[in-house]
Amino acid sequence: MKRVYIKDLHDHIGAEVTVAGWVDVRRDQGKLIFIELRDMTGQIQTVSFAGNKEAHGVMETLRPEWVVEIKGSVNKRPEKTVNSDLETGDIEIEAKEIFVLSKAQELPFEKDAELNLDTHLDYLPLTLRTERSQNIFKLQATLIETFRSALREQFFIEFQAPEIVGSDAEGGANVFKVEYFNDKVAYLATSPQFYKQIMVGVFERVFTTPKAFRAEKHSTTRHLNEYATLDFEMGFIKDHRDVMAVLEGVVKHLIKTVSEKHANIFKLFDVEIPRIPDAIPVLKLREAQEIIKKETGEDCSKEPDLEPAHERFLCEYSRDTLNSDFLFITHYPVSKRPFYTHEDEGDTGYTKSFDLLFRGVEITTGGQRIHDHDTLVGKMKARGLDPEKFSYYLQAFKYGMPPHGGCATGLERLTQKFLNLENVKEATLFPREINRIDTLLSE
Amino acid sequence: MKRVYIKDLHDHIGAEVTVAGWVDVRRDQGKLIFIELRDMTGQIQTVSFAGNKEAHGVMETLRPEWVVEIKGSVNKRPEKTVNSDLETGDIEIEAKEIFVLSKAQELPFEKDAELNLDTHLDYLPLTLRTERSQNIFKLQATLIETFRSALREQFFIEFQAPEIVGSDAEGGANVFKVEYFNDKVAYLATSPQFYKQIMVGVFERVFTTPKAFRAEKHSTTRHLNEYATLDFEMGFIKDHRDVMAVLEGVVKHLIKTVSEKHANIFKLFDVEIPRIPDAIPVLKLREAQEIIKKETGEDCSKEPDLEPAHERFLCEYSRDTLNSDFLFITHYPVSKRPFYTHEDEGDTGYTKSFDLLFRGVEITTGGQRIHDHDTLVGKMKARGLDPEKFSYYLQAFKYGMPPHGGCATGLERLTQKFLNLENVKEATLFPREINRIDTLLSE
Repeated sequence: MKRVYIKDLHDHIGAEVTVAGWVDVRRDQGKLIFIELRDMTGQIQTVSFAGNKEAHGVMETLRPEWVVEIKGSVNKRPEKTVNSDLETGDIEIEAKEIFVLSKAQELPFEKDAELNLDTHLDYLPLTLRTERSQNIFKLQATLIETFRSALREQFFIEFQAPEIVGSDAEGGANVFKVEYFNDKVAYLATSPQFYKQIMVGVFERVFTTPKAFRAEKHSTTRHLNEYATLDFEMGFIKDHRDVMAVLEGVVKHLIKTVSEKHANIFKLFDVEIPRIPDAIPVLKLREAQEIIKKETGEDCSKEPDLEPAHERFLCEYSRDTLNSDFLFITHYPVSKRPFYTHEDEGDTGYTKSFDLLFRGVEITTGGQRIHDHDTLVGKMKARGLDPEKFSYYLQAFKYGMPPHGGCATGLERLTQKFLNLENVKEATLFPREINRIDTLLSE
Repeated sequence: MKRVYIKDLHDHIGAEVTVAGWVDVRRDQGKLIFIELRDMTGQIQTVSFAGNKEAHGVMETLRPEWVVEIKGSVNKRPEKTVNSDLETGDIEIEAKEIFVLSKAQELPFEKDAELNLDTHLDYLPLTLRTERSQNIFKLQATLIETFRSALREQFFIEFQAPEIVGSDAEGGANVFKVEYFNDKVAYLATSPQFYKQIMVGVFERVFTTPKAFRAEKHSTTRHLNEYATLDFEMGFIKDHRDVMAVLEGVVKHLIKTVSEKHANIFKLFDVEIPRIPDAIPVLKLREAQEIIKKETGEDCSKEPDLEPAHERFLCEYSRDTLNSDFLFITHYPVSKRPFYTHEDEGDTGYTKSFDLLFRGVEITTGGQRIHDHDTLVGKMKARGLDPEKFSYYLQAFKYGMPPHGGCATGLERLTQKFLNLENVKEATLFPREINRIDTLLSE
């Protein structure tokens, strides 16, 4: 008999069906044994009666996470036992035959126990099975797919960025080294930046969603050593505001899609769907610093960037006074941005760059890039970088590049902030950190 | 004036427009200068007349790959100058004003010159701009997106597999080492296999499209050291044939989509859209070896796998006698498959595994996996592997796993074979190989 998914059981009331899944919970009342059966589509109460010796005998042996296939009839539940919290709370299956597909060992803790983060991570193959974890990663799947489809609608073409790179030309310390062939050293890409710029020369509008790797030693609630980056880049722009406009469209698309598809998840997490006004508010860094000074008395106007606490403050300010969970900060000083960032001719010393803040953290960073070959080479030299090391990348500029710009958004941070999770690692399937790759690394 | 894309110019005949793009070709006839202007949507002939001194003066300076914005009027071409090969061959733009957005240096070769592969790779930022390269990677973007959407339609959920892994537990020599923190060694994933199996325990049906890394020293027309892998894995299967059925559905989806969307690309490459019958033919390895013996006289029946030449022979055989560009080979011997492969109880010594051959090469490998914890541990031990090193992965099996299976398809090989390209590197944006990461590595 063909397996029926639990979400479709309402179409089979009164009929015999085969269902399959995991035993979520089991309650033994002697003459009646109940299990909650879980499959990829939902949960259903299943009951056996002592009268059916064979099925009841198997039900007595079942334990949480055993995998079973059950033949039985779909019955309406008596009115007073209806569970209105569950979509299938008005029906149950009376088990006629039960086949054990796979047994499970005793669980190390109750499946829905509140665990500290380390224990959660130690047991991910089990703890990811909780409804909470499932919902986080269902939402994440929707976010990455909606990012892609929103851009495809605007003629962006996907490409596959390489992740092994030949040089740490930008000279960051935060680069992982790879032992390549013949004693050569290669590196893991910290961003697909150079490749997406090259691809602007090919397709004008491109996006890519590869992994980026940062060998940062700190372990915080915001940082990951390996993360999925949602990158796009576009040619023929007037300035950074064209990029911000596309990003704003993508964010609105994300909010619309998750609110249609995952309203129940936001309810379960007791989180508001993010607020976005018609236009996301925009502040120059200096304007933001003025507001901080005025509102808190703290003078950070000499700082080239925002402290985490100030990012949180500005987000609260934006939410309370501008009704927006999102806030653009623009015009970071030239010194704080990478060499390829375009300076604002009308505001020298400052760049046509932006960060997008969302619920207290920066989720996106972007801007207009330099497209003139000689200007770019000059900026490299000014920072003591060797243009020879960038010769491959520089070809794109030697052979004609339009004004262009783009941005990068961290998928895990985005997921974290949509659901207001405390730690970005909760929104990362198998987080890599200084002391852990799946299991804790020994000292 | 808002920029008009070249593909939309037919809507503006007789009107003034602004277009922007790259100078593809320039022909100077003195009183008339023509350029072919290229943007992301097409090409358009643009002409200036000596009478318009300013525009004509700029046209005189233009060279291939310069980036320009042009204001001009869209005119019908005289009948005898219509180019019926081009979608915009019946119209042209008379340039009124031209703005140079970016100059280009002299090209190292004619843009459409036939280049040897190494020169092509040396100059990718330029050579990717040819129509040929653009078409290869447009097709690739469609293939990866169609893979994802075909699986989403069947309730598969996307997840992000990690690419830094903690052990080379399977003991292959083909693993790249990463310098992790505190003198620890980590590795680059050769496949998302273990993680997608873990995720079957979470979502039943999952897919992921990460990079896989193989430190194989050979440089062939089929191998890459970094490639995009299209992986799916599904629970509650009867056997490997359920996986093959889903894969067959995906392949049909790919063929349908590219034939609707990219018929012009197949025409330009002079390649037939792949042939697929209602059901892809299936041969056990031993049956395939019998056919090889009967048809060619070569006895390879003692071999545990197929030689490349035999794969090519079988694909020709499948095409000529079974009208299929695709061919499943199943039941590879246990010794040739990874430890987690499910043995066929009805054909001991052979596995419920399969390869999918397509136009001469294996593009997919897959099968049913062992889902019983103790059996899996036994198989590890039988191969001299230490189960302790797999303890994280084994949790999924300790806590209840359904019968499951899946497969992995190489995106670049798939692209290569759809267009019958000679070398897989032509279907790889920035191929990593033993002697090259973008530029050639010095000795």
